[in-house]
Amino acid sequence: MSTTKKGIGLIDTDIHERVSYKDLLPYLEQPWRRYITDCNWTQEKHMPYTQPAVAGVDRADARVPDGRPAGSDLGFMQEQLLDECGHEYGILTGALDPSPSSMHGWYEMATALASAYNDWQIENWLEKDPRLYGSVHIAAQDPKAAVREIERVGDHPKMVQILLPIDDILWGDPFYHPIYEAAEKHQLMIGMHHNEPPVHFGKWPRYFIEWHTLIPTAHMNQVTNMIFSGVFEKFNNLKLMMIEGGFTYAPFLMRKMDQQYKDLRHEVPWVKRMPSDIVREHLCFTTQPLEELRQWELMQMLEQMGSDEIIAFSTDYPHWDYDSPERALPPRLDEELKRNIFSENARRFYPKLR
Amino acid sequence: MSTTKKGIGLIDTDIHERVSYKDLLPYLEQPWRRYITDCNWTQEKHMPYTQPAVAGVDRADARVPDGRPAGSDLGFMQEQLLDECGHEYGILTGALDPSPSSMHGWYEMATALASAYNDWQIENWLEKDPRLYGSVHIAAQDPKAAVREIERVGDHPKMVQILLPIDDILWGDPFYHPIYEAAEKHQLMIGMHHNEPPVHFGKWPRYFIEWHTLIPTAHMNQVTNMIFSGVFEKFNNLKLMMIEGGFTYAPFLMRKMDQQYKDLRHEVPWVKRMPSDIVREHLCFTTQPLEELRQWELMQMLEQMGSDEIIAFSTDYPHWDYDSPERALPPRLDEELKRNIFSENARRFYPKLR
Repeated sequence: MSTTKKGIGLIDTDIHERVSYKDLLPYLEQPWRRYITDCNWTQEKHMPYTQPAVAGVDRADARVPDGRPAGSDLGFMQEQLLDECGHEYGILTGALDPSPSSMHGWYEMATALASAYNDWQIENWLEKDPRLYGSVHIAAQDPKAAVREIERVGDHPKMVQILLPIDDILWGDPFYHPIYEAAEKHQLMIGMHHNEPPVHFGKWPRYFIEWHTLIPTAHMNQVTNMIFSGVFEKFNNLKLMMIEGGFTYAPFLMRKMDQQYKDLRHEVPWVKRMPSDIVREHLCFTTQPLEELRQWELMQMLEQMGSDEIIAFSTDYPHWDYDSPERALPPRLDEELKRNIFSENARRFYPKLR
Repeated sequence: MSTTKKGIGLIDTDIHERVSYKDLLPYLEQPWRRYITDCNWTQEKHMPYTQPAVAGVDRADARVPDGRPAGSDLGFMQEQLLDECGHEYGILTGALDPSPSSMHGWYEMATALASAYNDWQIENWLEKDPRLYGSVHIAAQDPKAAVREIERVGDHPKMVQILLPIDDILWGDPFYHPIYEAAEKHQLMIGMHHNEPPVHFGKWPRYFIEWHTLIPTAHMNQVTNMIFSGVFEKFNNLKLMMIEGGFTYAPFLMRKMDQQYKDLRHEVPWVKRMPSDIVREHLCFTTQPLEELRQWELMQMLEQMGSDEIIAFSTDYPHWDYDSPERALPPRLDEELKRNIFSENARRFYPKLR
């Protein structure tokens, strides 16, 4: 076990390696390749703002010295992140933007891109550094094709989860059941990451700061829908890693769902347990973006969540709001709690990390 | 000052008196009246569920003995609620369902209904019981007409707030500024009440329990949008009563907005203070629906909110999830805190209650 400066084998549950469409060319079959090479294909998006940080979505100092974008070079990531912080393991969550799952048309191209993405990730990252584990990218808008992709790469020993972005169908919907079935079959967890920002009646939030603040509401919507739809009764082994939404909304959500369950459970008789018990059994939250919490605030939140085993440290490298393992948490935490947050909770959550 | 069984003059910040379209007939001019009398006009709504409680949205025991619906008879409300609990004051928040503000067409009819509603409320409730104070109903989709209605009835000594339901335009939008200006001019507060349930990409939540759980996310959206849009810098005296969404999401939201403000305030340079300071100065939360909180949980939340002066007790009478002043809060609270929650916080918030 390698060790951080803290003496704990750090498991980082959210590292974004960056891929460009050009990187994927060697992994794409025709005709898909030629849409990029000959037609300069790209996904259009119409967002009224960008990340208002000096280097866009990234830390300015994470840009590769030769000018390539942050997160695109293994050697530089090893030096700046994995070696520097002493990572035992890191989970790659990708940065092809927009993701294949957000392509609302042309599902075939989305499916081909997801496959190329996975092959590129395995060859250039997972098989080149023993510390790095990966996420299966899919085009979830076509669940059958998504299941084929999971079958194809899901048993790779370093693939730990399926990345299922949030889109226009709520995750409790039977539409996604084939993906959950495939996840259980291949012992893969599901990673929930917001995709497009939360929208209000189909309209964009007015400012970036507004949608960035509200990302957790997108996670709340999905978890509530999944729990009351009985997804975790149907898929007993399904586990969700809640990525990049933080965890400080969890005490509220768990308490609120429990109260509503006490009041209204006769509407959803297939739900057999208190929602907060389902959360503690089936969910884990990556910590980033972590607010600057004082120790008493963190301890109060863990007390209210009834567990210190469902949050797992993440840096979100190389994004501008990166959390440092040296500074993100209050400094004088109990050693066992630190070990849980920095390492053991993720190890328990992902069976392939042992 | 009348006293509750607790020895505190109870101010109840959310009581729903019920009105039917027929009740409004004497207050409606032609041609509006004849749409109801001759055409049986009603608003259509297409909701896949109803409140799954034995008496629909209401407490079964609040039905008027002569068979009329709960909340429709002043005498019975006085007996069952005001006298029984020893209310000093109660704020009426209405129950014309759906509300005039949710009429997405025919704004003229909506405006006429709002006026009739206000006149009916004044004549039959506010002027018949000194304990009852009221809310100005408006058709907010037509802000000029809404302002005319506020001008017409807003100076009534017992009108304390404008009820502005959540609809498809976010509350930070300049669209609503004329209403905020009128609120300040007439020393009226703004009451925020969810209107239609939160929707995900235009679709209904799958279950009633799901949307009922997620109501606070609708409030989070609006508050975030208002604060970052600079509404409270432009309208220094504007105050929001957050009705029927509870307050247990506030610690999360305040902390989250503060962190985002620290990171990204250069995007919104018109926002001059920490969002949590704006919340503490401009917002108050009615307590219902209150989860069953243990005393340490409530105390932790107030500590995290940095104030025990921004929550105000409400029963939500006569709805099925009514909170009893005798039982909703942990029993052994400090006397001063009880006095704040049950009475003084609302008195500070609404200047007309003295």
